[in-house]
Amino acid sequence: MRLYVTPASPWVRRVRVSILELGIEDRFEFVQTKWSHKWATQAVLHHPDFLEATPVVRIPALVMPDIALSDSHSICDYINGELGGFRLLAREGASRWRALADISVASGIIEAQIARRAELLRDERERSSDFIQKMRDRELRCFGSLEKRVGDFGAAFDLAQITTVVACAYEDWRYGGEWRSVAPKLATWSDMAAKRPSMQATQPTETPQS
Amino acid sequence: MRLYVTPASPWVRRVRVSILELGIEDRFEFVQTKWSHKWATQAVLHHPDFLEATPVVRIPALVMPDIALSDSHSICDYINGELGGFRLLAREGASRWRALADISVASGIIEAQIARRAELLRDERERSSDFIQKMRDRELRCFGSLEKRVGDFGAAFDLAQITTVVACAYEDWRYGGEWRSVAPKLATWSDMAAKRPSMQATQPTETPQS
Repeated sequence: MRLYVTPASPWVRRVRVSILELGIEDRFEFVQTKWSHKWATQAVLHHPDFLEATPVVRIPALVMPDIALSDSHSICDYINGELGGFRLLAREGASRWRALADISVASGIIEAQIARRAELLRDERERSSDFIQKMRDRELRCFGSLEKRVGDFGAAFDLAQITTVVACAYEDWRYGGEWRSVAPKLATWSDMAAKRPSMQATQPTETPQS
Repeated sequence: MRLYVTPASPWVRRVRVSILELGIEDRFEFVQTKWSHKWATQAVLHHPDFLEATPVVRIPALVMPDIALSDSHSICDYINGELGGFRLLAREGASRWRALADISVASGIIEAQIARRAELLRDERERSSDFIQKMRDRELRCFGSLEKRVGDFGAAFDLAQITTVVACAYEDWRYGGEWRSVAPKLATWSDMAAKRPSMQATQPTETPQS
């Protein structure tokens, strides 16, 4: 199966870390995609394979002979359930719902990070400083919420922890360490989690330009 | 448990239709939220209850004594698995992954619809016609993709069908019937599906202004 990726996307990184943690990377062909810096507002020219594989035309996309999954949520669900024996997220029950609650907040951060990035890539005349501020505030509020959760994180590096550390690492990379004073315990935890081989192997780099 | 809603949001409608299809509406207290028309770029003043319940500050949000879920994906997963006996989406296996693939495309439409709406609500000087065009193109591409799927839709009105008909109905409501010529079979199917009591009971109306 083909996984369409970029090295900058936290949504992609979340999938790649999940794959590495499950030790199933040999099941995938990783296909790099290129994106114009104008992706925030304009259509991007892509390889016909990618366009044919997913009408959403976004990464990550997991493409199999019969079906395609075009968002990180469904891809992680598939990888965990079909390929991972539910080792990253319980199939049902209280532990699944507890993890989904944390994932919901961490995903809220990642969505805000991407929306802020897209705003920063807009033509300066069309850029909204209010919107950038709104996304920054949402990120910090959500980091503050996860700060109250980190003490209860279990020993298993599950999908909730993966999503959280990817959000922390992206924030550091794109927007600096302001969040660390809002969430100091989370910062300490994320520095440890970031040492895992799966995180080391997926350090972000700039998206290749088309 | 409290579900924070608005009458305009397709993400909320997807959750409300799921609840009605499962016949579990008496389990929920529905809380209407109000939003300034400036929500697209600016922070909105909300009731303290809502702010305390979810750091993401978005609807839908499902708030229980111990956990909160702040996105439609995790809320539907919880409702289906914990309250619905997996009647809207299989717990695992090929039928789940097939449904997730359709949900992924229909969710791609809804995300684009909301992003386009937010763009249209921006101050005119900061509005990008390129972005509006990009979202429109994505919507039509995804409707075209679901057009190839509708012949295989099963008898059960499951989460994939719910998400799809909500996307169709929102498109009609906000952006008119252009999509219908791209996806005529889907349009015929959605006109039938929209007659279900769950859809009739959740017709969109404008978001109450704060």
